[in-house]
Amino acid sequence: MTDHLTPRPEHHFTFGLWTVGNPGRDPFGHDVRPPLDPVDSVHRLADLGAYGVNFHDDDLVPFGSTPSDREAILKRFRTALDETGMKVPMATTNLFSRPVFKEGAFTANDPDVRRFAVRKTLDAIDLGAELGAGVYVMWGGREGVEADAAKDARLALDRFKEAVDLCCEHVRERGYDLRIALEPKPNEPRGDMFLPTVGHALAFIAELEWHEMVGLNPEFAHETMSGLSFHHGAAQALWQGKLFHIDLNGQRIGKFDQDYRFGSEGIRDAFYVVRLLEDAGWDGMRHFDAHAYRTEDAAGVWDFARGCMRTYLILKEKAERMRDDPEIQAALAVAKADRLAEPTGSLADVRAAAPDEERLAAQGYGHERLDQLVTDLLLGAR
Amino acid sequence: MTDHLTPRPEHHFTFGLWTVGNPGRDPFGHDVRPPLDPVDSVHRLADLGAYGVNFHDDDLVPFGSTPSDREAILKRFRTALDETGMKVPMATTNLFSRPVFKEGAFTANDPDVRRFAVRKTLDAIDLGAELGAGVYVMWGGREGVEADAAKDARLALDRFKEAVDLCCEHVRERGYDLRIALEPKPNEPRGDMFLPTVGHALAFIAELEWHEMVGLNPEFAHETMSGLSFHHGAAQALWQGKLFHIDLNGQRIGKFDQDYRFGSEGIRDAFYVVRLLEDAGWDGMRHFDAHAYRTEDAAGVWDFARGCMRTYLILKEKAERMRDDPEIQAALAVAKADRLAEPTGSLADVRAAAPDEERLAAQGYGHERLDQLVTDLLLGAR
Amino acid sequence: MTDHLTPRPEHHFTFGLWTVGNPGRDPFGHDVRPPLDPVDSVHRLADLGAYGVNFHDDDLVPFGSTPSDREAILKRFRTALDETGMKVPMATTNLFSRPVFKEGAFTANDPDVRRFAVRKTLDAIDLGAELGAGVYVMWGGREGVEADAAKDARLALDRFKEAVDLCCEHVRERGYDLRIALEPKPNEPRGDMFLPTVGHALAFIAELEWHEMVGLNPEFAHETMSGLSFHHGAAQALWQGKLFHIDLNGQRIGKFDQDYRFGSEGIRDAFYVVRLLEDAGWDGMRHFDAHAYRTEDAAGVWDFARGCMRTYLILKEKAERMRDDPEIQAALAVAKADRLAEPTGSLADVRAAAPDEERLAAQGYGHERLDQLVTDLLLGAR
Amino acid sequence: MTDHLTPRPEHHFTFGLWTVGNPGRDPFGHDVRPPLDPVDSVHRLADLGAYGVNFHDDDLVPFGSTPSDREAILKRFRTALDETGMKVPMATTNLFSRPVFKEGAFTANDPDVRRFAVRKTLDAIDLGAELGAGVYVMWGGREGVEADAAKDARLALDRFKEAVDLCCEHVRERGYDLRIALEPKPNEPRGDMFLPTVGHALAFIAELEWHEMVGLNPEFAHETMSGLSFHHGAAQALWQGKLFHIDLNGQRIGKFDQDYRFGSEGIRDAFYVVRLLEDAGWDGMRHFDAHAYRTEDAAGVWDFARGCMRTYLILKEKAERMRDDPEIQAALAVAKADRLAEPTGSLADVRAAAPDEERLAAQGYGHERLDQLVTDLLLGAR
Repeated sequence: MTDHLTPRPEHHFTFGLWTVGNPGRDPFGHDVRPPLDPVDSVHRLADLGAYGVNFHDDDLVPFGSTPSDREAILKRFRTALDETGMKVPMATTNLFSRPVFKEGAFTANDPDVRRFAVRKTLDAIDLGAELGAGVYVMWGGREGVEADAAKDARLALDRFKEAVDLCCEHVRERGYDLRIALEPKPNEPRGDMFLPTVGHALAFIAELEWHEMVGLNPEFAHETMSGLSFHHGAAQALWQGKLFHIDLNGQRIGKFDQDYRFGSEGIRDAFYVVRLLEDAGWDGMRHFDAHAYRTEDAAGVWDFARGCMRTYLILKEKAERMRDDPEIQAALAVAKADRLAEPTGSLADVRAAAPDEERLAAQGYGHERLDQLVTDLLLGAR
Repeated sequence: MTDHLTPRPEHHFTFGLWTVGNPGRDPFGHDVRPPLDPVDSVHRLADLGAYGVNFHDDDLVPFGSTPSDREAILKRFRTALDETGMKVPMATTNLFSRPVFKEGAFTANDPDVRRFAVRKTLDAIDLGAELGAGVYVMWGGREGVEADAAKDARLALDRFKEAVDLCCEHVRERGYDLRIALEPKPNEPRGDMFLPTVGHALAFIAELEWHEMVGLNPEFAHETMSGLSFHHGAAQALWQGKLFHIDLNGQRIGKFDQDYRFGSEGIRDAFYVVRLLEDAGWDGMRHFDAHAYRTEDAAGVWDFARGCMRTYLILKEKAERMRDDPEIQAALAVAKADRLAEPTGSLADVRAAAPDEERLAAQGYGHERLDQLVTDLLLGAR
Repeated sequence: MTDHLTPRPEHHFTFGLWTVGNPGRDPFGHDVRPPLDPVDSVHRLADLGAYGVNFHDDDLVPFGSTPSDREAILKRFRTALDETGMKVPMATTNLFSRPVFKEGAFTANDPDVRRFAVRKTLDAIDLGAELGAGVYVMWGGREGVEADAAKDARLALDRFKEAVDLCCEHVRERGYDLRIALEPKPNEPRGDMFLPTVGHALAFIAELEWHEMVGLNPEFAHETMSGLSFHHGAAQALWQGKLFHIDLNGQRIGKFDQDYRFGSEGIRDAFYVVRLLEDAGWDGMRHFDAHAYRTEDAAGVWDFARGCMRTYLILKEKAERMRDDPEIQAALAVAKADRLAEPTGSLADVRAAAPDEERLAAQGYGHERLDQLVTDLLLGAR
Repeated sequence: MTDHLTPRPEHHFTFGLWTVGNPGRDPFGHDVRPPLDPVDSVHRLADLGAYGVNFHDDDLVPFGSTPSDREAILKRFRTALDETGMKVPMATTNLFSRPVFKEGAFTANDPDVRRFAVRKTLDAIDLGAELGAGVYVMWGGREGVEADAAKDARLALDRFKEAVDLCCEHVRERGYDLRIALEPKPNEPRGDMFLPTVGHALAFIAELEWHEMVGLNPEFAHETMSGLSFHHGAAQALWQGKLFHIDLNGQRIGKFDQDYRFGSEGIRDAFYVVRLLEDAGWDGMRHFDAHAYRTEDAAGVWDFARGCMRTYLILKEKAERMRDDPEIQAALAVAKADRLAEPTGSLADVRAAAPDEERLAAQGYGHERLDQLVTDLLLGAR
């Protein structure tokens, strides 16, 4: 069993530099851990069995670095990648920390801020492409409002579309093999953010000029904050061919953005997400966008990283066992789960149908038993 | 001022028969009010200044009525419409009350249930078309799960699409001048429902065969239950040309589905929704999908209906005054609200841009002052 | 292992008649299951290993029964108890279903309604005492408001206190060996309810005339609806010597009152509650106030009941293993968990203390590792 | 009208130094405003009509200041108070920012940390008393957990009690005229915090050694985060004689701790809180624990402060008008609001009561009309 639970590169586990590098600052408290050197993080994560690392532009190359500093940093970083075999499957831009973005970035009212934001993104796309990233994540951390009067929501969507279109155009012009993944979030740091859920972002994509280049990076915590089913959201993204990347972590409904270790909150929800990805044969990255509790010292950070991967693998094994468990399969048959694959039929079929309502209404679907079997499976009691 | 606040048919206020007819039953209590005769409701609502009424198939014609009963009911109902000038702008189907739908309707695992559900919908579409409805609302009250194992979410979306496609095909075949509006809801009565938000439903529409026939009926309470901005959701639906109908009511975040009188919860949110509809010149119905508190007798029901319309008209007047208020307009200029209409520019513009970050970061946007001016406007203090 | 997981009377599992008897009605749907005969329920629950059953007055003796009907019902019910050895450890009153309570019961504005409510409660206390109940639960299902203007919250607390004092006086006068347990709930069916959480109810008790007779019946679902930690709430009730009864079930934060099978939502939360009760050696009832999903037929109801008890026993076994697991114990030592039992000291100790802040700040507490070990334990991976 | 809306010292408006001094840092972004000099804040707030300022120990005297620095700071600060007539009605301790408190302060597992925390509090109490504060607020920002295994909740309450008892003992020993007010909060920065609501804190107080010295500082945002009625919570605190201080601000349910301008979210809730305080003749401070949006420059900070006070005064005036409005008073009579003051009666009265249930059940309470009249009042439409 231990072998199944040892992370290996083929599991496609990745971490952001900002996740293990999180110093434990929060709205009420100062840093509790020193910054990490990205090169050390690459080595540590490789040792733990990860496949790769991701970064925001400023995580790797501090904002305002000179070209020669940039080169030196990249050279050292590439060496670490080469030595470890680690990849950089995804890159992104920090459009939220600097005061210039306080009123928005792609949807800032001031066109100068928007140009600054798009330009910073183009540079970060170049950096990502240079390091081989295949997915570019866009999280609009400041795209939103507290005072609704200040920003017309429809104009904001016009500008958001314009900015994503510009980035796509840049990618195409440069010939990068790069897809863009939007990351929705309902609120925090803004009171209400544009593209708040998987659904709103998916819908928005349909309006983009190069919509086929753009998909989603849904995050467990973000969808869960609103009390929505992340499993259903990820399933809809898959169903629409738009799951380009995924952010796994832990979160309680209706709270601040917690970004806890994967599986530490919402075990059952986490299980159904793992099962969905594995049953779908999804070949993308399992990215953990989370960080260690503020109670931890440097050692706790690596316990955190280990735990994320371990829980994923435990749940993956359970998903496999679910497929082979005869009692669960029998309960699924009682629930008629397989019959959902049968088409309802043509208009003529429907018009001609004369089902016996009483009989259908009397059917029991055995969900209590089925769900308890899954509970037993999760708890290791079968 | 009173004249502005008197509801008139041109305001396009509508009520469902089920809203004023709600008998006050809830999960913990019995009916407190006797059923209303739909014909009386038409007369009462006409007297109050409404434009029309909407209904679920079973609200008007009890399920299982004989053809002759159906005809008698319809004849009497049409007479009431003729006498009052009231319209039936929208119709819908009840796919949630009867036990046959307990496991789902369009997404039931059992194909017989699905055929039953689609057929019931086709009949209801016929009824709606017969009475002149231009919008057909689909709320999937039972499309969801508690026990996630029992239903594959991607197959459920396949079946949901199939059902909506069949309905569209039926409408086209019959030549009805009818558009379909999906009504999203996150949960209740199911643990998690498919198409939980405005976004998820909008995204789903893009996959439909006759997607141009299908739009949304977003509901204030449903989006608010998840803590999402209903104003932003409605704005995105408008932005994508998909606002076909709207359900207005009152709701507190993170609670059971309350369906309170419009404006009784979330005054500021209600204001921004009214302002959006009025500023957009939206010409659809302002439908109140709500009901009187259980504390009320029959008289309270009409107080409830009056209150919904009155608050809308008060807020509409405030939206107009906002456009003319010089101080608010000055504050909007400080917030650079109008500059969001300026395009960000071409890729060349962006690449050439060299904005002064420090200057941009130092700008204040005056949102505290702007938002307080809106507060004053709402409170009648300016 | 199976032996550990077989429910037996000494486990003190109880069910309300209304829980297994729930017919599956919800705000949007009709009954899906026929009513159960309380006598059959007693036999079925006894067969499954339960210790007892609880009821609302009207569950057992329909409201308005004649004295002779009452006697006949009780005789038959007592026979079932005698035959099975089942107990009635708790009884309660239905002060929420009938229209007379629509504006409140103990806190109704109309004194006639309040007298009716208290009298119904006195009768139900008599019935409970007659059947040997040692705990009387008070859930104020209609004690609250939607329209805040209608009820002065401080006067409502006066009346609530008065009603509970009257009930205590009645119990004392009759010489019953009965304690009263208040059951808090934040909302549903009322918009906001008085005594919304474990805390508010605990605080209220301190103001009662016979406060020593009154404690709490906290419910997992009710505290969880508000996103509060039920584990912490139950711990505070224990700490204050006021845990008189407990309602176990499953609930997602920020949703309608779901009353799902224990453990079906919130596995980790459920674990910590079980661990708390077991570690505290709490000798009260483990009452499941929940019901089967609406998808179920009669058979599913008993699967539901089985599942509640099974999950409790699985989690109980894990709580025991946690005490014996050397790695978990080592992690607890790193977290200094045991040192919380050490007093902080006297004022002189504190004033004299000169701790090395830097050293203390540098400590890591190993919570990531500890929490992952608990996750492994829960998932059966250790 | 303007005169009513001009803040004056007798309105008892206060601000924390940390509120106007908030530099706009958030979990995703850097400071956007420079620090304020406390002396300037005192002058600015005095000019705006405030009564006083409050502070955390470190807000005024940076942690680690030498005694002579402390004296110099205090002298300059006192001068500002003298010049302006501003008071310091409340003081508090920062037990959350420094890394030493990352695992807790009063409830830290490590006794050395606890002693450090209590001692810091004793020093801050001395500072507060020195400046004339009559209320000492205790907010346990780090008293809680993410990993529940790490801390026994009952032991944590033991330690919490011990710490508060020590502080009370210190106050008594020194002979300060100072009462202590606990400030509950459900979560953030910790996953779950002890004493999460007004209720839990009120209940805890009953266990304290000098419970008569300890009351509450409830905060609008904190109770609202959990979706609880802050108005009801404040009413219960008043009812129990424990409202010692109050924190007013704005917050949306189920979100991160927003601390927005009073009245900017939840207008109706804000109104009922103002009405409660004014109707109760509460003579304490109206403290605004909030801060300006991150979009603001220095000028926006004072707009923020102005707005808090202005909205309070507007709502106060509406509460007065509500008492005099004959239509509202008539609607209150229909709701039988005044009859809630009538006692229910003695046990004999209740037993003898034979109310006509049918008549009582048929009564309508007119809440729709009453609530709409309040809506009209709030919107300035009556």
